Amino acid sequence: MSNVANKNTVWHEPSIYRKDREKMNGHKSVIIWFTGLSGAGKSTVAHALEDILHKNKIRTFVLDGDNVRQGLCKDLGFSEDDREENIRRIGEVSRLMMEAGVIVLSAFISPFIKDRKIVRELVTKGEFIEVFCDAPIDVCETRDVKGLYKKARAGEIQEFTGISSPYEAPAKPEILLDTANQTIEKSVERILAYLRKQQIINVE
Amino acid sequence: MSNVANKNTVWHEPSIYRKDREKMNGHKSVIIWFTGLSGAGKSTVAHALEDILHKNKIRTFVLDGDNVRQGLCKDLGFSEDDREENIRRIGEVSRLMMEAGVIVLSAFISPFIKDRKIVRELVTKGEFIEVFCDAPIDVCETRDVKGLYKKARAGEIQEFTGISSPYEAPAKPEILLDTANQTIEKSVERILAYLRKQQIINVE
Repeated sequence: MSNVANKNTVWHEPSIYRKDREKMNGHKSVIIWFTGLSGAGKSTVAHALEDILHKNKIRTFVLDGDNVRQGLCKDLGFSEDDREENIRRIGEVSRLMMEAGVIVLSAFISPFIKDRKIVRELVTKGEFIEVFCDAPIDVCETRDVKGLYKKARAGEIQEFTGISSPYEAPAKPEILLDTANQTIEKSVERILAYLRKQQIINVE
Repeated sequence: MSNVANKNTVWHEPSIYRKDREKMNGHKSVIIWFTGLSGAGKSTVAHALEDILHKNKIRTFVLDGDNVRQGLCKDLGFSEDDREENIRRIGEVSRLMMEAGVIVLSAFISPFIKDRKIVRELVTKGEFIEVFCDAPIDVCETRDVKGLYKKARAGEIQEFTGISSPYEAPAKPEILLDTANQTIEKSVERILAYLRKQQIINVE
C-alpha cells in the first residue's frame, strides 16, 4: 500500500498561470474599478463596455451589487466596518478573477479612499484601473433610477453616500469620466482607448 | 443639465450572460468540488486536470487554500463557524467564476456534509460536481506532504480533520476517486470522461 501511495504523492505544482491564460485569450487581464455616487452611471458604463469587449472575444465579468450583496457579502450591512469588509472581499474576488484571465469590471460606490487603496495594493501597478464616474449629486439625485435618494432624504436609508455619508473622490484616477454630460458611448470609448494604449487589449 | 443627464440615464440591463460566454468558450462552465482528507490528492488531481483542460483551450481556475486563505478568507480561523463561513465564501466565489464562464476546480477538505450541501444548493442541478478523493487516513498520514499530520499528532494543530475533527464522507458524490491506489492520470481520466458524458466539454 505505501509503495503505491508514495508513487502517487508526487506533488503537482500549479503549472497553468495567468500568463498562460492571457496568451490563450489574446488579451491581458486587469481590474477596472468604477467608483462614484449612486446613479453616476457605474454599472451602466460597465455593462456597455462589457458588450463591446465581449463582441471582440475578450473575457469579462461585471461585479456589482446585484451579484455580490445577496451572495458573497450577504452577511454584511452598511456600517463603516461592514462597508470596508465588503470592498475588501470584492477586491479579493476581483484579484482571483483577474488571475483567471478575466477583465473584471467592478462597479461599486466604494466611497472611501482607504478602501479603494486596499484593493489597488492587492495587485501589481497597472493592474488596477480606477474609473471615476464623476457626476454631481444633484444630477444623480435627479436620475434616482432606483429611488434610493428619495428614501435617503426621507431618512429611510441611513448612511447613504452623498446624503448622510461622505464620498471621497479619487485624487488621481486612471480615468475620469464626466458622466453627467457625456454619453455612455463616449465614456466607453474613453476606457477602450486607455486599454488599447496600455496594450491590455489590441482591438480596433 | 437635467436634459443632458436624463438622456444619459437609460438603464443598461446586463446583456452578456453566462450562456454567451459558454458559447464563446466552446464549453459549459461548472463547479468541480474536490473533497477529502489532507493529503488525499485534491489539489494534485485538480492541477493535473487543469493542465489537460487548458491544453484543450478550456477556461479553468483552481481555487485552493493557497489562493484563498491568505486573501479572501484571511480573517477566518479554524473554528466550526469560521470553517463554515470559509466554505460558504468559496462557494460564492466559485459560483461567480462559473457565471464568468470558467470551469472552477475547488480543492478544499470541506469535511462537513452540511457545508458542501450549502454550496451545491447555490447552483442549479448538474452544475456542482462533487469529487470525493477517497484515501484512508493511514495513507494520507504516510504521505504527509505538508507535515501537517505530524503537527496534528503532536497537538500543535487543533481540530485537524481526521485526527481531532471528523471528516464526513459524501454519500453519493458524482465522482469517487480511489486516490490511495489509482494513479493521478487515471483520476484525471475519470473526471474527463464524466465531463464528456455530461456534455460539459467535447474534447477527445
